Amino acid sequence: MNMPPDTLRILGIDASLRSTGLGIVEAEGSRMRALWHGRVRNPQTRPLTACLVALQDAIGEQIAAHQPQAAAIEGVFFSKNIHTTLILGHARGVLIGQCARLGVPVYEYEPRRVKQAVVGFGGAVKDQMQRMVMTLLNLPELPQEDEADALALAICHLHNRTRLRLSGIEPL
Amino acid sequence: MNMPPDTLRILGIDASLRSTGLGIVEAEGSRMRALWHGRVRNPQTRPLTACLVALQDAIGEQIAAHQPQAAAIEGVFFSKNIHTTLILGHARGVLIGQCARLGVPVYEYEPRRVKQAVVGFGGAVKDQMQRMVMTLLNLPELPQEDEADALALAICHLHNRTRLRLSGIEPL
Repeated sequence: MNMPPDTLRILGIDASLRSTGLGIVEAEGSRMRALWHGRVRNPQTRPLTACLVALQDAIGEQIAAHQPQAAAIEGVFFSKNIHTTLILGHARGVLIGQCARLGVPVYEYEPRRVKQAVVGFGGAVKDQMQRMVMTLLNLPELPQEDEADALALAICHLHNRTRLRLSGIEPL
Repeated sequence: MNMPPDTLRILGIDASLRSTGLGIVEAEGSRMRALWHGRVRNPQTRPLTACLVALQDAIGEQIAAHQPQAAAIEGVFFSKNIHTTLILGHARGVLIGQCARLGVPVYEYEPRRVKQAVVGFGGAVKDQMQRMVMTLLNLPELPQEDEADALALAICHLHNRTRLRLSGIEPL
């Protein structure tokens, strides 16, 4: 896929076993646009193994289709319980592993940092995030929550990219 | 790979990001033997993404080489902290996902159940497990701890396989 040399494509990943949001944001200079966003839904009745395969397939497809130069995922610093954390870990492992397999470096951002980058302050609520993502990317309608989070992660990475070295951020 | 029709090969997985034990046990009637066992070591300096790719490659190689009919992995019911659980989840996600990708059903067993199957009681310590695995599989020397745990999981599955339906155990 041909891109102008100053174009950057970032894959945002809002990871979860049952509903992973994915979004591709392209930046050309200071102009940003959403190339694609969508969700990987795994119904509650689907076994864990089939969910993991579906996540791997879906992210693989989007990487092949859009050839992002990097991916951004949210860091996990809070947990309801061990079961929830373990299951989220499974989903993240497969998603991060597939990025690595396909040569896409993965950067991790704290939720506060994503909110700061998109809304301007770290305490923003979901609804504010969705509206700001819609505005920043000039979307025709409010993006679904998980997709908005994924797009926000990509925007956050684009905001931070010029100071990546200065801020000492390393890929996972 | 040709096997007599009453032969069963099970892949045991002792999952962890830095040192995953793997072991293949073959059963022919009531006779069991270890076909292979080994460890996937990921040095502390290796980034998460490279560790996940290494785990995926290693388990894929062993599945291709030995064509197991099923895999057995330990359930996680205890955690030191969220970070440890999340990282273990990443490793498990990639390992379980790769089994699923390659058509190998994965069964999960409680640590107590594995100890019961191998040593005869649920409170067995590591050392007892290693010795019993060596004895049961007639190994020439004491297997390394993670490898012994992997072989023990395979033995546990073989012990339980005839009552899988009765006991309502389903693959993940």
